[in-house]
Amino acid sequence: MLTSTVLSSALLSSVLVGACIGLPTAHAAQAQTPAVSDAPIKAPSVSEILAASPDADWRTPDPGNILYMDVAGGRVVIELAPGFAPEHVANIRTLAREHFWDDLSIYRAQDNFVVQFGDPDAGELGARSLGGARTHLPAEFERPAAGLAFTALADSDGWAPQVGFVDGFPAAQDPAGGSAWMTHCYGALGAGRDMAADSSNGAELYVVIGQSPRQLDRNITLVGRVVRGMEFLSATPRGPEPMGVYDNPARRTPIATIRLASELPADQRERLQLLRTDSATFAAVTEARRNRRDDWYKSSAGHIDLCNVPLPVREMPEG
Amino acid sequence: MLTSTVLSSALLSSVLVGACIGLPTAHAAQAQTPAVSDAPIKAPSVSEILAASPDADWRTPDPGNILYMDVAGGRVVIELAPGFAPEHVANIRTLAREHFWDDLSIYRAQDNFVVQFGDPDAGELGARSLGGARTHLPAEFERPAAGLAFTALADSDGWAPQVGFVDGFPAAQDPAGGSAWMTHCYGALGAGRDMAADSSNGAELYVVIGQSPRQLDRNITLVGRVVRGMEFLSATPRGPEPMGVYDNPARRTPIATIRLASELPADQRERLQLLRTDSATFAAVTEARRNRRDDWYKSSAGHIDLCNVPLPVREMPEG
Repeated sequence: MLTSTVLSSALLSSVLVGACIGLPTAHAAQAQTPAVSDAPIKAPSVSEILAASPDADWRTPDPGNILYMDVAGGRVVIELAPGFAPEHVANIRTLAREHFWDDLSIYRAQDNFVVQFGDPDAGELGARSLGGARTHLPAEFERPAAGLAFTALADSDGWAPQVGFVDGFPAAQDPAGGSAWMTHCYGALGAGRDMAADSSNGAELYVVIGQSPRQLDRNITLVGRVVRGMEFLSATPRGPEPMGVYDNPARRTPIATIRLASELPADQRERLQLLRTDSATFAAVTEARRNRRDDWYKSSAGHIDLCNVPLPVREMPEG
Repeated sequence: MLTSTVLSSALLSSVLVGACIGLPTAHAAQAQTPAVSDAPIKAPSVSEILAASPDADWRTPDPGNILYMDVAGGRVVIELAPGFAPEHVANIRTLAREHFWDDLSIYRAQDNFVVQFGDPDAGELGARSLGGARTHLPAEFERPAAGLAFTALADSDGWAPQVGFVDGFPAAQDPAGGSAWMTHCYGALGAGRDMAADSSNGAELYVVIGQSPRQLDRNITLVGRVVRGMEFLSATPRGPEPMGVYDNPARRTPIATIRLASELPADQRERLQLLRTDSATFAAVTEARRNRRDDWYKSSAGHIDLCNVPLPVREMPEG
C-alpha cells in the first residue's frame, strides 16, 4: 500500500505478526502501526477508519461495468467509466461479450509507463476481427463538467486547475472551460490510438504501471481503472527499449479471458465493494494519508497528490 | 520512456522500424516521431536534442559513487549521493567492499511502492555481520541548502516550496528554512529504518517502484538513485499484502553481488555517462517533456512534475 512505511526486516517481521494479512489492501493499510509500537496512535489509522465505516459509504459496482481479466498470475478486476467514455465502454462491452481478447496477450510492457494488450497483429494480415464492435470511435478525451458529481481535493495540482474524484475515478476539471476528464494515475485503463485523435476502438488497451504520465491527459481516451490485481500487470517482464514491445512473441503474457461480470452467474462474480469517493470515510482516509500521524512518521507532508490517493476495496459483507 | 505515446500495435510496428532501438533510453525517447509521420516536427525531439548535445553537458560519474547490483535479470546501476547522505554512503561503500550483500536477496516487493533488499534475518538469530560497517548512523533526512548547486524547476510542486535537481538527483528545498533534501521519485534508493529516526545503517535498502511516495521525504534517508536497470527491480513478482514480504523464502530474488565500480578494473566498468542536470541540454529535454510538440499530442500539458523528468544516460563515446 502507498501508506506502508519502509521498515527494516526485523521490524517488518514484528509488523507482519500484527498486520491484518487476510484483509484487503485498504484494510491492511497502516495495520502495522499498532504492532510496531505501544505508543498511543495520534489519530485513527486508515484501517481503523475503514473498520468504523458505515455500509452506506461503500458501493457494489454495476456488474455491467466490471471486467475480469484472467492472466496466468491471477485475476485483474477493472471498473469501466461509461460516464466519461460511453462509446468506448459500449464497444468494450461488445468485445468482451464476443470474447475478443481470449487467447490474445499483453504484447508490450514499458518500464515506468504502461503495459498494453490486445491483438498484436491489429491492422495487419491475420488481425482478429472486431466482430460486432465498431472499428472507429470518436475521441472521448473530455466531457462537460456539468452533470458530474465532482468531489474536489483541496490539494494543489500542477497539471489541472482542479482535481478530485468522480464515482471512484481520479479526475480533473477546468471550471473556467467547463470540461472534465479522467487522469492518468497508476492503474488507469486507456484505449491506444494512432495519430488521429479518433483512431481508437477500445480493442487495444493499456494500463499505467509507473509514475503518473499526466501529460497523456486529454490526449487519449481513458476508459476505466484497475480496482484489484494490479500486481498481475505491474510485474510483467519489461520488453526491450524503446517502447517495451516484445520482439520475441514467446515473451508475451497470454490473456486467458476477459469477461464482463454481468455475463457471469451472480454466484460466480467477485464480491467486492469500493469505497464511495463522495463519502465522509473516503475524506477521512485521504486526510489520514495527507497527514501521517502514526509514530513512524517524523513529519507530515500536509499534502497529497491525486495519484497517491488509493481506492479502498473490500469484500462484500455476508448477508 | 515516459515520453512514449500509447500507440496501436499497427502503429507501434511502424514506429519500431524507425526507432533507434540500439540507443540508450534517453536517445530512443521520441525516436518514433520521425517514423510515424512525414509531417514536420514542430520542435526538436528529445532524441534530436540529445544527439546535438555537447560532450561538456555529460558527466562520467565517480566510480566511487557507483554500485553494480547484479541479479538474475541483469545489472542494476546505482549512483550514490554523498552530498546528501555522507555517513550512509560511507557505510554502504564499506558494506560493498566487504561483499555484505552477496547471496542475500530482494525479500520484499510491494506493489506501487518499493522493493527492499538486504538481509531478511537482520536483527534476528542468524543475521549476517555488518563487518567493518557501523551498526548505527545518524538520520540524514535533510541538509543545509547552502553549498548546493540547486537547479530549480519553474514548475509547481505540492510537496515542497521548490523542487529541482542537484548533481543529477531530484531534490527539494525550503528557501525559508534553508534546508534541502532528496525526493522519493521512481528509482530512488533509500535506507530502511525502524521507529527511531537514526535506526538505519544502510545495509537494508529499498528502491521506489511505484507512484512517487513523496510523503516519505524528510522521514527517511535517501542515499542515491538507480540510473540504469530499473526493469530488473520493477518487474519483481510482488509479495503478499499488506507489505509485500514473501512468506515463502523461495520467492525471494537472489542478489549475486553488489560491487563498487571503483573496486573493479577500469576496463570492467560500465562506460555510462549521465546528462548534467545543470546543463542547457537537460533544460531543453525537460522543456520538450513539459510541452510535447510531436504530432501525436493534441494538447501540451505546459507542466511537468519533478518525478516525471528522466535522467538521460548514454554510453561513453569512444576515444
